[in-house]
Amino acid sequence: MASKELIKKLEETIENFPDFPVPGIQFKDISPIFLDSKLYKHVIADLAAFSKGKVDAVCGIESRGYLFGIAIAVALEVPFILIRKAGKLPPPVASEKYDLEYGSAIIETREGQIKPGQRILIHDDLLATGGTTEAAAKLVEKQGANVSQFSFLIGLKDLKGHEKLRKFGAEIYNILEY
Amino acid sequence: MASKELIKKLEETIENFPDFPVPGIQFKDISPIFLDSKLYKHVIADLAAFSKGKVDAVCGIESRGYLFGIAIAVALEVPFILIRKAGKLPPPVASEKYDLEYGSAIIETREGQIKPGQRILIHDDLLATGGTTEAAAKLVEKQGANVSQFSFLIGLKDLKGHEKLRKFGAEIYNILEY
Repeated sequence: MASKELIKKLEETIENFPDFPVPGIQFKDISPIFLDSKLYKHVIADLAAFSKGKVDAVCGIESRGYLFGIAIAVALEVPFILIRKAGKLPPPVASEKYDLEYGSAIIETREGQIKPGQRILIHDDLLATGGTTEAAAKLVEKQGANVSQFSFLIGLKDLKGHEKLRKFGAEIYNILEY
Repeated sequence: MASKELIKKLEETIENFPDFPVPGIQFKDISPIFLDSKLYKHVIADLAAFSKGKVDAVCGIESRGYLFGIAIAVALEVPFILIRKAGKLPPPVASEKYDLEYGSAIIETREGQIKPGQRILIHDDLLATGGTTEAAAKLVEKQGANVSQFSFLIGLKDLKGHEKLRKFGAEIYNILEY
């Protein structure tokens, strides 16, 4: 849905850092987008348009998923639910463990904040291998809600995150695809 | 500036957890605010009104400072600058070390994102001892910018963070004070 102009402007603005934070990874720094209020407002409008009328709440994944996540929720006037790293939310929490390249991690949400039957948008800034997003989706389904949509600023096609998320039967959208 | 109604509604909504995450700390969970779009929009409007016309950019402290921080920036149509925990931003970064109860921590921002002479709002959700916020303010001043304002959803008066920040000569605002 994003215009060619928006995509071009984003590609010019996002900075690429080879071998950061570890060798072999190319880090895409999205922070320069937020220096340009006209640009970040276009991104918010584009992401909000994708979800308008289709979701009852937005789940944002800590911490960069909070940035456009809360802005989408404000634009749609729907609840925003924080998905946090383990140990940061008080009990009782719903949690989901997932594998990382080395070891594992846990994400959590306060129990009861996601309501059964809600249509949920899961938002993060970047879709890579999809491990965290998949865990977030399982967390949503465990609470009896439906994952209706995933949105990302960037999707890295080669890492096959899109394929990992397909089983949830939700719409998947990224403004930029590499 | 916040109305009595807003303050009352927030006090009813924020949940208190004694002895979380460690004994002796009372954790205030602000996440329920984001379940109520009318309520969070009031908070954003109140925080934005405090800063309107008075700042050129907003610095938000990772991660909960991103939530209202980005929303304030959107409302004011000014740049939003991410202040992150160490190691998450690619080089070159400006960094500032500060003491914690046990050990120390470092916060960072991308070099060049804060411009000399800018009037900066530093936003976080909660002002406790003020250690992180003080480090953020030093980071801003090191870049040649001016800390014009601090805003918080909550200020914990007994922990003397307000006093620690006074030396920066900036306005300090919290909607709720305990």
